Amino acid sequence: MRIYDIITKKKRGGELTADEIKFVVDGFTSGIIPDEHMSALLMAIWFRGMSSAETVSLTTAMLNSGESIDLSDIPGIKIDKHSTGGVGDKVSLVVVPIVAACGGIVAKMSGRGLGHTGGTIDKLESIPGFRTSLTRNEIIEQVKQHGLAITSPSSNLAPADKKIYALRDVTATVDSIPLIASSVMSKKLASGSNAIVLEVTVGNGAFMKNIEDAIKLADTMVRIGEAAGRRTTALITDMDTPLGYEVGNSNEIREAIDALKGKAPDDLNEVTRAIAAEMLYVSQKGSPDDCKRMVDNAIKDGSALQKFRDMVKAQGGDASVIDDARKLPQAKYHVAVPAKETAYLTSMNAEEIGLASMALGAGRAKQGDEIDLSAGITIMKKPGDFVKRGEPCAMLHANDTKKIQDAQLILRDTFKAADKPPKKSPMILARVEKDRIERF
Amino acid sequence: MRIYDIITKKKRGGELTADEIKFVVDGFTSGIIPDEHMSALLMAIWFRGMSSAETVSLTTAMLNSGESIDLSDIPGIKIDKHSTGGVGDKVSLVVVPIVAACGGIVAKMSGRGLGHTGGTIDKLESIPGFRTSLTRNEIIEQVKQHGLAITSPSSNLAPADKKIYALRDVTATVDSIPLIASSVMSKKLASGSNAIVLEVTVGNGAFMKNIEDAIKLADTMVRIGEAAGRRTTALITDMDTPLGYEVGNSNEIREAIDALKGKAPDDLNEVTRAIAAEMLYVSQKGSPDDCKRMVDNAIKDGSALQKFRDMVKAQGGDASVIDDARKLPQAKYHVAVPAKETAYLTSMNAEEIGLASMALGAGRAKQGDEIDLSAGITIMKKPGDFVKRGEPCAMLHANDTKKIQDAQLILRDTFKAADKPPKKSPMILARVEKDRIERF
Repeated sequence: MRIYDIITKKKRGGELTADEIKFVVDGFTSGIIPDEHMSALLMAIWFRGMSSAETVSLTTAMLNSGESIDLSDIPGIKIDKHSTGGVGDKVSLVVVPIVAACGGIVAKMSGRGLGHTGGTIDKLESIPGFRTSLTRNEIIEQVKQHGLAITSPSSNLAPADKKIYALRDVTATVDSIPLIASSVMSKKLASGSNAIVLEVTVGNGAFMKNIEDAIKLADTMVRIGEAAGRRTTALITDMDTPLGYEVGNSNEIREAIDALKGKAPDDLNEVTRAIAAEMLYVSQKGSPDDCKRMVDNAIKDGSALQKFRDMVKAQGGDASVIDDARKLPQAKYHVAVPAKETAYLTSMNAEEIGLASMALGAGRAKQGDEIDLSAGITIMKKPGDFVKRGEPCAMLHANDTKKIQDAQLILRDTFKAADKPPKKSPMILARVEKDRIERF
Repeated sequence: MRIYDIITKKKRGGELTADEIKFVVDGFTSGIIPDEHMSALLMAIWFRGMSSAETVSLTTAMLNSGESIDLSDIPGIKIDKHSTGGVGDKVSLVVVPIVAACGGIVAKMSGRGLGHTGGTIDKLESIPGFRTSLTRNEIIEQVKQHGLAITSPSSNLAPADKKIYALRDVTATVDSIPLIASSVMSKKLASGSNAIVLEVTVGNGAFMKNIEDAIKLADTMVRIGEAAGRRTTALITDMDTPLGYEVGNSNEIREAIDALKGKAPDDLNEVTRAIAAEMLYVSQKGSPDDCKRMVDNAIKDGSALQKFRDMVKAQGGDASVIDDARKLPQAKYHVAVPAKETAYLTSMNAEEIGLASMALGAGRAKQGDEIDLSAGITIMKKPGDFVKRGEPCAMLHANDTKKIQDAQLILRDTFKAADKPPKKSPMILARVEKDRIERF
């Protein structure tokens, strides 16, 4: 087998065999296939796409490039959750405790990631003392006792994906549905859960800019998951506007805690409720309606918040932040972004808000960058709100006034207003399961 | 400017500016832009193509990456010729002396190249003593005195092209019309002639497999040449069958000498006559019909052969090979490829004959490989000939019986026969000049 022939085949629109894909993934991971061959192949895949069989083969080859986590010592259905990401995405922080409170079992691996804010792991590190690196035994014991854990993977999960992603990132081949799907799913399959709920975000703050692409990505990932014998479903959610009011790290922890106290903003409430119920449904805890009721009760009776507290304590964190958010990291400067006119706020560009958040220090531009856990943005007004000229649309939090100026520049045209409020649209746009797509 | 943004722009179908293309070519040549970025961009170009303006910019950037040869000390129109190559392609060896005999001026740079046989330079080295590396002054003096020289370039012509081509060669991005056109033309423009005649071959022994692609490539190259102020035209020629009877190095020299003596096979005669006349026409030596008559006369009166003799002597070669071909390198073994049935020969796959020639030792698989100048193939029968079972269709020449076995294996299904002779088709399929395409 020669990489040249494989590139040629894909370039001309041919379907690669499982053996050819394994040859490429193994060869690239071991360094036998050099970057310049791989990037040519990735660009050919960007143009030609991949069949279902190719995508499954790619995922399998990347999965098999490293270790997998064995969660079989924990009885029952272990449910995992993944989001393709967005601005203000604190969903995992809210849904994992809810699901655990309802009897679901979640041993979640989360990443640090790159982007507008830190990943779930970074956010959790806002809580003084919180340990994100647990041994396999610690994870298993904690999940057996409390039903939940959120940790960073200790083993070398899907190293091929890591190496391929790094190359895609510099060669403009990230935005390919089969490549995104196989990247996500190779890590999810390696994380050891039996069932997976995917959240595919769509809008200007997400990878997928339109619903058709989002459904295609969801369907591709569901097929991969089901082909690997994991029950997999996906919800498509709106990401034109940041989710909730907080964008950052410690401020998102605060908002997640508020949500567990029953004080979630409408959009965050709609998304977390749907995803938590879906995770319970996939965990076979009841009918879709039963699951929604269980979620509502877990918030109402405080059991979800208690699960969050259990997790923080079990992972060595200072649980008193739950009762006093001022104990979380606080920035030095807080500057308002004023409304330009008296009118209804109609939209805000989520991507720009994300970039501004990164400029404030809340996210990473490249791997290894330090994050300022206290930096971020609090959105004060959401589309549909009536604002007066000069009234703050958002507050910027940072420890450096230069960074605030950079963020202000990014946000100069972000908040749009008009005479009439915009039409309200649902947050959950579609649901995808094996061989079935529902649009709402 | 960032290579990432340039890849993204091309990937999405945008048109690159001259500045962006210069940034890429300079950055890649100097090593600032690494191979993995360049190969992703080349693959995106393979899919998206390039506009006329982009192709001109790419050629200019590659041309400017190195030195150009200054032929301005030689008065008059210096005419160059290039072929996209084929099997048995000894055209330059025949047309350059003809054109010089008719008053044309040819200071031709030729390459060694890779492939089925050596390049023109390798073939000329079959002549004992023939020097292919001349100084600039030697070239200028020789061309002033005799009107012709065929040498290998002494300066560093278009190094960017050399580096880009090496990458294309391993990443399956060679077969792209704008990339082929700019590669050829950057070297032609650097070679210093004022006018260029291109031969674009089409058929199974050529890069271009169909006439539409060949015309597109010719048109692209003509536009580049004219944009650079060089009078440029192209002829599209058939390359389904090897040209003439000889494929190799010393045996092609022998056949070229025979052609200059007026004993060319029909196909070779048709092609060399058309290209030599075109070169004279572009050199403004007369009308197309005048030029054809001049070519015929130069063969008939021996002046073309005399020019070849002048060139061989001027470049230090043993001119007695012209009178006694046995002085050229001869192989040790000569083995026939017999006809399988008694019938009309209908076709022979030029590509397979080329591969067999390479297997015999006449060509290079990779740069730096040694060539056996005496190895090659003599085709005994051409399509249309009636052959009897067991009669030789070709003779294989080599110095190693193992190589002959390899060639026999390649050629086992090359010669096709049928009850009726095939329809004869013309060798010159089309002519392309600025804003004009004629099909024959």
